Amino acid sequence: MMRIDILSAVPEILFSPLNHSIIKRARVKGKAEIHYHNLRDYAFNKHMQIDDKPYGGGAGMILKPEPFFSCIEKLRSEREYEGIIYTSARGKVFDQGSANRLSLMKNIIFIAGHYKGIDERVIQKYVTEEFSIGNFILTGGELPVLVFVDAIVRLIPGVLNDSESALSDSFQVGETIGEPYYTKPEEIDGMSVPGVLLSGDHNAIKKWKDDESRKSTEIWKRNNNT
Amino acid sequence: MMRIDILSAVPEILFSPLNHSIIKRARVKGKAEIHYHNLRDYAFNKHMQIDDKPYGGGAGMILKPEPFFSCIEKLRSEREYEGIIYTSARGKVFDQGSANRLSLMKNIIFIAGHYKGIDERVIQKYVTEEFSIGNFILTGGELPVLVFVDAIVRLIPGVLNDSESALSDSFQVGETIGEPYYTKPEEIDGMSVPGVLLSGDHNAIKKWKDDESRKSTEIWKRNNNT
Repeated sequence: MMRIDILSAVPEILFSPLNHSIIKRARVKGKAEIHYHNLRDYAFNKHMQIDDKPYGGGAGMILKPEPFFSCIEKLRSEREYEGIIYTSARGKVFDQGSANRLSLMKNIIFIAGHYKGIDERVIQKYVTEEFSIGNFILTGGELPVLVFVDAIVRLIPGVLNDSESALSDSFQVGETIGEPYYTKPEEIDGMSVPGVLLSGDHNAIKKWKDDESRKSTEIWKRNNNT
Repeated sequence: MMRIDILSAVPEILFSPLNHSIIKRARVKGKAEIHYHNLRDYAFNKHMQIDDKPYGGGAGMILKPEPFFSCIEKLRSEREYEGIIYTSARGKVFDQGSANRLSLMKNIIFIAGHYKGIDERVIQKYVTEEFSIGNFILTGGELPVLVFVDAIVRLIPGVLNDSESALSDSFQVGETIGEPYYTKPEEIDGMSVPGVLLSGDHNAIKKWKDDESRKSTEIWKRNNNT
């Protein structure tokens, strides 16, 4: 069973995504154990202070190092972690290869930054990899961590049903995007399902799907200049 | 005030992120109004069925078109929407430019797919833009939508405090990443804050920050081959 520990200054953000859909299912099926840790529980002083002004001045508050050191040392005294991952703007942009690789690890810690950032010494001392969710700015690392956890957990064998098989998904078969999908009704608001999909002609259907998947992949490539 | 409507098959995922941190603050301050709609409330038949098998066969379930048509028609009868956005693998990868642009819109609908996908006719008829969160696979569009909403809402004037000013953030100043941050204590576990930051020499501090920001940007570029 994979174990994931998430360190956060605002763990309340994590509650509903961790308790619904695929992440919940992975937990219920005993495939993944997910724990979150409130940095405030590891604050040193009586004011429960977890952030402070940056040395050298500047806007915004920085998460103090002590609560991270204290929480990570506790976790590492209990088990070995193969990955201690921080979400940061300068990190490698997360991709399916990263998800595949992380899904094979046994124990992972995710550090969610918040406010302006975290004290650099936490990264120097503990972090094995920094991942960015993309080239845009968020308020905290909690949502990226949830995204990474979803991408990873669904790859653990036994989490998805056969009918949801991760292998036919976009990006999992080389760099191809799936075809467009249609379901009942046959017509809505004057718009019909492509006739070939109703034809029962398996060869024609396969050809249509391959063609459309290629078109989707072309759109994706054009959209993203790859 | 910006209004955001989110359509989802599993809106429970959205609860805690919409009710904490920056998104909550935007709502409390009256800068953004965020509504979610459960597709099940727009299901046609008595079984509340919202998904069905894909025409032409294949694994996975597809979200039926009727609940989307019905919900979007209702919303559009009440106000005008500048953007109706779907999260998909083939879309343009979301970036800060997208966030900046969307933050100027008054009313936006986000459609979160789930399971294998949604009926293509929903996209044909209504969707103005498709965004991808990146080149990896997730179980549903709910987390990407939350990420996009966070990135957009924090740009609305008055949501962030002066001290959090979005303008000095990574990616907002051209394509530069911020410097590393340090806060109290001066020393932890034998690791010290760089001396220059304690020097009080404003010119030296500025030079250090510029140099380190440049280094972070180099790391980011190397990480992402840009």
